Amino acid sequence: MQVARGAYETLAFSRPNGDPSLLPVRAQLGRRLLQSRPHRQVTSTLTRRLQSTEASAPLTPPPPPPGSSRWNRILQTTGRITLFTVVTAGGLFYYVAHKDRTPGPQEPHDPTKKTLVVLGSGWGATSLLESLDTEEYNVFVISPRNYFLFTPLLPSVATGTLSAKSIIQPTRYMTRHKKRQVTVIEASATDVDPVNKIVQFKDTSEVQGLVSSTAMKYDYLVYAVGAETQTFNIPGVRENACFMKELDDAERMQRRFLDCLESAAFPGQSKEEVDRLLHMVVVGGGPTGVELSGELHDFLEDDLRSWYPELVDSIKITLVEALPSVLPMFSKQLIDYTESTFKEAKIDIMTKTMVKEIKEKSVVLQMPDRSIREVPCGMVVWAAGNTLRGVTRELMAKLPNEQTNRRGITVDESLRMKGADGIFAIGDCTATSYAPTAQVAAQEGAYLARVFKQLAKRDALRAELEELKGQTAPEGEQERKVRVETLESQVAKTDKTRPFKYSHQGSLAYIGSDKAIADLPFFSSGNLATAGVATYLFWRSAYLSKLFSLRNRALVANDWIKVKIFGRDVSRE
Amino acid sequence: MQVARGAYETLAFSRPNGDPSLLPVRAQLGRRLLQSRPHRQVTSTLTRRLQSTEASAPLTPPPPPPGSSRWNRILQTTGRITLFTVVTAGGLFYYVAHKDRTPGPQEPHDPTKKTLVVLGSGWGATSLLESLDTEEYNVFVISPRNYFLFTPLLPSVATGTLSAKSIIQPTRYMTRHKKRQVTVIEASATDVDPVNKIVQFKDTSEVQGLVSSTAMKYDYLVYAVGAETQTFNIPGVRENACFMKELDDAERMQRRFLDCLESAAFPGQSKEEVDRLLHMVVVGGGPTGVELSGELHDFLEDDLRSWYPELVDSIKITLVEALPSVLPMFSKQLIDYTESTFKEAKIDIMTKTMVKEIKEKSVVLQMPDRSIREVPCGMVVWAAGNTLRGVTRELMAKLPNEQTNRRGITVDESLRMKGADGIFAIGDCTATSYAPTAQVAAQEGAYLARVFKQLAKRDALRAELEELKGQTAPEGEQERKVRVETLESQVAKTDKTRPFKYSHQGSLAYIGSDKAIADLPFFSSGNLATAGVATYLFWRSAYLSKLFSLRNRALVANDWIKVKIFGRDVSRE
Repeated sequence: MQVARGAYETLAFSRPNGDPSLLPVRAQLGRRLLQSRPHRQVTSTLTRRLQSTEASAPLTPPPPPPGSSRWNRILQTTGRITLFTVVTAGGLFYYVAHKDRTPGPQEPHDPTKKTLVVLGSGWGATSLLESLDTEEYNVFVISPRNYFLFTPLLPSVATGTLSAKSIIQPTRYMTRHKKRQVTVIEASATDVDPVNKIVQFKDTSEVQGLVSSTAMKYDYLVYAVGAETQTFNIPGVRENACFMKELDDAERMQRRFLDCLESAAFPGQSKEEVDRLLHMVVVGGGPTGVELSGELHDFLEDDLRSWYPELVDSIKITLVEALPSVLPMFSKQLIDYTESTFKEAKIDIMTKTMVKEIKEKSVVLQMPDRSIREVPCGMVVWAAGNTLRGVTRELMAKLPNEQTNRRGITVDESLRMKGADGIFAIGDCTATSYAPTAQVAAQEGAYLARVFKQLAKRDALRAELEELKGQTAPEGEQERKVRVETLESQVAKTDKTRPFKYSHQGSLAYIGSDKAIADLPFFSSGNLATAGVATYLFWRSAYLSKLFSLRNRALVANDWIKVKIFGRDVSRE
Repeated sequence: MQVARGAYETLAFSRPNGDPSLLPVRAQLGRRLLQSRPHRQVTSTLTRRLQSTEASAPLTPPPPPPGSSRWNRILQTTGRITLFTVVTAGGLFYYVAHKDRTPGPQEPHDPTKKTLVVLGSGWGATSLLESLDTEEYNVFVISPRNYFLFTPLLPSVATGTLSAKSIIQPTRYMTRHKKRQVTVIEASATDVDPVNKIVQFKDTSEVQGLVSSTAMKYDYLVYAVGAETQTFNIPGVRENACFMKELDDAERMQRRFLDCLESAAFPGQSKEEVDRLLHMVVVGGGPTGVELSGELHDFLEDDLRSWYPELVDSIKITLVEALPSVLPMFSKQLIDYTESTFKEAKIDIMTKTMVKEIKEKSVVLQMPDRSIREVPCGMVVWAAGNTLRGVTRELMAKLPNEQTNRRGITVDESLRMKGADGIFAIGDCTATSYAPTAQVAAQEGAYLARVFKQLAKRDALRAELEELKGQTAPEGEQERKVRVETLESQVAKTDKTRPFKYSHQGSLAYIGSDKAIADLPFFSSGNLATAGVATYLFWRSAYLSKLFSLRNRALVANDWIKVKIFGRDVSRE
């Protein structure tokens, strides 16, 4: 049948332009073949008839053109599949994207509902907003950034692999799709009064209206303001280093890196000065520092080699870490893999090394043997740890008995801030047993969405109970009592929330040279540790699926393809 | 035949899974049909045989399913075309892009060649570099920006239609593909000495090496430094307005615009203050001002309506122009079309109106009737005219007899700066009869590339002539004399350069709402003036083909598709 099918198709494509007399005959034939009998029958009838005529009019059969029919078939099938895929995927994609960007009207705030204020727009807050049923609350989101930033991809923006806009999602893109209106306010919280349940906030941006600071009463407050970069009061860090926390930091680092390159290319620069300018020091051996070093190395190999051939071999990347090893959250095996990959990529790793000072043109290091060394460099990137924001410290100072942990806000097992009624705290501003990662914050946010659903239910039951208790029903008194009892037990039940439990999904890090490492707790026998190119592809798809919207997924994938085709940009904006 | 072909195809697709005994028969049949005779013959033979059997075993012919065969055919052909296009275009595209990003090694500078210094990296300089034969010169490019900026698309970046990186092209992406090395230096020219032929320049960026300023001797200098924004010394322009000249300006404007929106969304803002914050004033009715107004309007309608529904109707755009009409370079008809489009789009045009002062929260206007009015606004964009850079003024002051035009550098018909030997000046720093447009500068640059080719030829002839004149050849004296004469006439010929002549290719402007206007001098009878959606598509493709590289063309097209699908971003970075 294989060959026969090919033959029919070839036949179908030969057009008898020169023989119009045959047209009606064939049309008739075609019609007969396409009749209502099942195709199989038709086919066999035709075959039998052809068989019977074969003896009377024999054909001399030379060998068929080899492979042509198979090729034809493959081409045809692939063509159909391609067309189908392009059209369907394109249409579906456009439909979803269009729906995403044209949200309908929303219900207005309802004065009978409680007020829920969310401070922040990072991993915790955004994850909460995504899952929250806003119908039960009047929700306000207050954050100095009107967008969510996908922080794990920040090093990619710093090296130009991704465009800044691809890893951010305006908070309104999410809140505008909620059933009830959510008010987004671009402002920084300046004070929280946990007793009177009032939050104060201020517009800290360049353009300000007549009203630029105000206060708001809340029933529930989700405190998810994150942390800021920890400098350990080391001199010169704030003045001379680039950070890697906000979008702005990534863009500043990119400018500085390219600026170092251009200054090194300035005519008459000495060899020592070129080496100094092209020495890039990354402080912090966590995932951010490691990924940034890896991405810088890729930029070097993939792009700078083409455009700055005379400089590229002078570029040096050094990763400095105070602990005995980089990536302490990964298994020993993966750490070794990372170290050997970095060795191949000529990225120096200096462990057990502490930064003592950052000067304009150098970094002062305390070596493992406690000796002090001043290393000349063009750029220092500081990716080493978090510290609490001022507003968090002030809030904690108001509850001196309950909030005693200097690392962050103490919360109970349901993420309620200890000592404060109606405040929940999640993410990097809290002191929990979990690492300060995006994964933890996101799970805490999703957990809170469930808590708020339960709270709404409890509040509704309580209201009903209150009403019932106030009533007097001389006739159905027994009935009323039963109902009251049922309600009371229901309220008691909803009062208990299941405690938050973190479920570790694994750690991933990109280490450059198209390689990634992954620690995955999939198997009960222990962790699965993988590394290499396959893991890199997994890393990419994992990141894509973790991004919240179709839009961001498409933008990031688009950027990756763009860089694969055109490389990164070396313009210094 | 139409129906018959369809029938065969249907048949070919029906698989007789349940009847394996038929397989060999059909395979044979297929082979016979695929023999070396022309297909037409095979087909007719088959048809004839089928015809002959028809009488003995008649089939009852019901009508065929209407259209199914035609659909099948269309689907098949389209499938093939899609597959073919995807594969071919993809492969070709990848090949060209890959070649573009992996330039090979270059010849080093040759001390026997003359030194050509190019100041600038705008339209004039980039166009020159594109056409220049660098084998004949040691070329140095000095510019404070290490990239070329496609200025006409700047308003699109300001509104987020395009990403900043899409409209810039690093200068090295072009120079690294030249046969002989071209040195690109990121620095600002600080002084030109036209007598001793020395140019001084300085690294003005944040990071500087030990050597950050130096001087260079040139044989030829192309002076293409452009202009800066003219403020007419109107108070407050520099402090309170956004410009629209550099990439940075566009990004600053975008931030400011979104900042105004967020401040207007701040809770408790009064109606007057919201109106003030959302009033955007564009000063300058040239193409930049008009395109920016149009793009702002698109942003409003396409995106802000979804994300800021409560604010969008308070946004107001006003275009202020001192002259009696906007776009004076276009025909009356097109100006009218623009004005009526703006009227529909609710963009106010105020002509014959002068800006007297720009305050932090308002703009002071002198109305056509000479009355003064202070208009509250959230943002003012200043897109009104050019003025000379300081370094240009200083250079002109060194040649007070020849350089007397306050508008710019006076050049002869071959674009040589009057009074200076070896300096050519092009673009917005010159005072010519042409408008200060990208088109003029680009043509001047391409013209200079031809001039330099001729100069190299002349210099080679001259060198030969000198050598010959210095020789004594007692035997072939007559021959030598003839050769000298020939060379002398050739040198005289190459001394004359054909004067520069500008050839106007037409004016284009995007006016928002997917509409564009075009003034095209294609017909001798007069200008062809077109407007509307078709012109808009022409505008897009014209811009794409005018962009220098495949990379930029693809990036801009990609951005346009991205915005069509996902809309613009409203994150305030």
